[in-house]
Amino acid sequence: MDPIKVGLLGFGTVGSGTFTVLRRNQEEIKRRAGRGIEVARIAVRNPAKAIAALGDAAGSVQVGDDFNSVVDDPSIGIVAEMIGGTGIARELVLRAIASGKHVVTANKALLAVHGTEIFAAARAKGVMVAFEAAVAGGIPIIKALREGLTANRIQCIAGIINGTTNYILSEMRERGLDFATALKGAQAHGYAEADPTFDIEGIDAAHKLTIMSAIAFGVPVQFDRAYIEGISKLAGIDIKYAEDLGYRIKLLGITRRTERGIELRVHPTLISAKRLLANVEGAMNAVEVHGDAVGATLYYGKGAGAEPTASAVVADLVDVTRLHTADPEHRVPHLAFQPQSLSDTPILPIDEVTSGYYLRLRVADVTGVLADITRILADAGISIDALLQKESEQIADNGETDIVIITHETLEKNVNAAIACIEALETVVSRVTKLRIEALN
Amino acid sequence: MDPIKVGLLGFGTVGSGTFTVLRRNQEEIKRRAGRGIEVARIAVRNPAKAIAALGDAAGSVQVGDDFNSVVDDPSIGIVAEMIGGTGIARELVLRAIASGKHVVTANKALLAVHGTEIFAAARAKGVMVAFEAAVAGGIPIIKALREGLTANRIQCIAGIINGTTNYILSEMRERGLDFATALKGAQAHGYAEADPTFDIEGIDAAHKLTIMSAIAFGVPVQFDRAYIEGISKLAGIDIKYAEDLGYRIKLLGITRRTERGIELRVHPTLISAKRLLANVEGAMNAVEVHGDAVGATLYYGKGAGAEPTASAVVADLVDVTRLHTADPEHRVPHLAFQPQSLSDTPILPIDEVTSGYYLRLRVADVTGVLADITRILADAGISIDALLQKESEQIADNGETDIVIITHETLEKNVNAAIACIEALETVVSRVTKLRIEALN
Repeated sequence: MDPIKVGLLGFGTVGSGTFTVLRRNQEEIKRRAGRGIEVARIAVRNPAKAIAALGDAAGSVQVGDDFNSVVDDPSIGIVAEMIGGTGIARELVLRAIASGKHVVTANKALLAVHGTEIFAAARAKGVMVAFEAAVAGGIPIIKALREGLTANRIQCIAGIINGTTNYILSEMRERGLDFATALKGAQAHGYAEADPTFDIEGIDAAHKLTIMSAIAFGVPVQFDRAYIEGISKLAGIDIKYAEDLGYRIKLLGITRRTERGIELRVHPTLISAKRLLANVEGAMNAVEVHGDAVGATLYYGKGAGAEPTASAVVADLVDVTRLHTADPEHRVPHLAFQPQSLSDTPILPIDEVTSGYYLRLRVADVTGVLADITRILADAGISIDALLQKESEQIADNGETDIVIITHETLEKNVNAAIACIEALETVVSRVTKLRIEALN
Repeated sequence: MDPIKVGLLGFGTVGSGTFTVLRRNQEEIKRRAGRGIEVARIAVRNPAKAIAALGDAAGSVQVGDDFNSVVDDPSIGIVAEMIGGTGIARELVLRAIASGKHVVTANKALLAVHGTEIFAAARAKGVMVAFEAAVAGGIPIIKALREGLTANRIQCIAGIINGTTNYILSEMRERGLDFATALKGAQAHGYAEADPTFDIEGIDAAHKLTIMSAIAFGVPVQFDRAYIEGISKLAGIDIKYAEDLGYRIKLLGITRRTERGIELRVHPTLISAKRLLANVEGAMNAVEVHGDAVGATLYYGKGAGAEPTASAVVADLVDVTRLHTADPEHRVPHLAFQPQSLSDTPILPIDEVTSGYYLRLRVADVTGVLADITRILADAGISIDALLQKESEQIADNGETDIVIITHETLEKNVNAAIACIEALETVVSRVTKLRIEALN
């Protein structure tokens, strides 16, 4: 059988990684897929640069800057969208679908924001849209959620799904750096972009979490409902205090099914240092999934980079190659659940989320301050799991001292109300820093 | 569409777990699979006991002791073999295939030993034989290897794939127990069977490793070529010395592609305590897979138990339900590679394997003994990475002392030859205890 022909849109990190892996492992891939898979055309803004990068391989592929002509080319069976973003990428994906092409994409933003539109279009045309590379790079987490755990009523997912922020947090903890210094180091090492906003403010993680949440619980993608808090305001002192209390701080994406709705939130989170997830360091990713039958499972690997991401793109190309001539009803539904079976379970606003909390505040070291604070918490029905008052040697010259409180699980809005009361105390001389704690059960 | 009907053979831990999970999550599973999946018949040696165990659910299913009549029943679409072993299970699986049934099995021994025969029969009849539950219980590792990592030339797999032995090793290390005491505790807690041979001698792990090796490298299952060494002879002192040197001892299944052949071996192994894999404790399983594109990935979860194993069985039932009416060529090949593309790369005998080594021996504390030993190693071309001589307080009254040597990577047969020379020294008063070290790269 002739190889199936792929049209690559974009030739940046992921696009060129995909080309390299497909070419290097073509024999092994063919032994698995039963059919060759080859990149026949590449559309890219700067063809000359791509041709230079291709080197010896340039002769095997047609490179140009006309994206539409690749998408429309009847000899192309699969369009691999490696451009990113929600502008031209959306138009090209929809155009590819309209012309009956199967699509493979690594574009988390596109699917988290426009997934409903794209999957509906794909269904109407009977084509596949595969997106393993959109979440956690080379870790086959989409396949695990959509196919490997189908027996389960999935209860919750908690993941380290942004390598940039995990690298920064590891550096802050291990080397005692503040955020700005750690960010500069991450940029120098190529782990953070010149404009790091998408990563450090949690937006990238929220895109990925939105996709996993839809697949896990059978709900539409609803990125606009996600609660998102990044790490740019995280203080080094909180990483240290957390460690003193047996916790590590990770930027987690958490999505959980509760009786009142679905939690969908990204924020810095304290987790017990004993958990495997807490020990995922540097730019690595890991996703912990809890199912009612399987219990806890965890998936770990590289979440970014040319070849790890290409690993997921090519796995999707193999899946599409195997299944593209099969009856669409035999395929796994895009969002894991049959489209007519999606649920309208609401996404919970952050105020309605239940969590444990870490509260840090600075107080004047006068009699009765602790009694006032604990009274406020008790009146709000919030019970205290641990309390850390820094010892006298650490008290500032002005007699002020830090207090750290770990609470049991409680409703976010109750904690916020209590914090407002605490901040109104005259003896409390700082705002209250609030971080969430995840027990992972 | 009517539900697809499953015939369960056997109603022990996994069979009853499968029934429970399918029943409890039937709505969720149907939302995913697009079709109901129901257990219509159960064949079991003692139907009365099964009916009692079924309780209220007994009315929904036909229970009997005639295994053949379930396998032959034309209304049954999928036979789920939950008997285990290589006797009657093999006959029933082949009979099911011959009558055109798809098969789901958790039977690692059957596939590791008779896989070639069974997969050939299934191919000839165009039916699926799915076996996610055969390796690492609820962790979807078969799917990850067969589908999630298809882009990669897989380089090596190292796994904790037997929960019983991992539990025993955790207890030995954490509580300083000897093997016999830890085994008794494992039996008391239900983590080890009354006859624990299959687990503690590494046979169960070797069955699972054999299956993963075939899928990873595209070779036939060759259980008879596996090197197998269990933990029953492991001394507590080696766990302690290993820990002093920064290692933990795990029973690992290791399979690796080398230029000279494929390694396929199960034995107690030292791994750096810093690795995630070293921190998998208790009865949990984890598999680390290295691919040339993706790098290292790790998969963690419960490797045994009724519902974790049922999670994998039901995932297979969903896969078969989706794909059973599709053209067989669209399915993933049983052993991940197209059957005509299997490789005849040989399995390396253990003598030809390269590894680091931990050597422990007892010597008379006389001048020159260390010089003699290090001279023997140097003459054999074996370089020393670390050497631990217990200090005087730990020397026995008779002046004897333990020496522990960590070597760099070298050929097993060279180490064996050097050990023979060391044991022939008059100053060496014990046999040499040899354990392998895995760098996981």
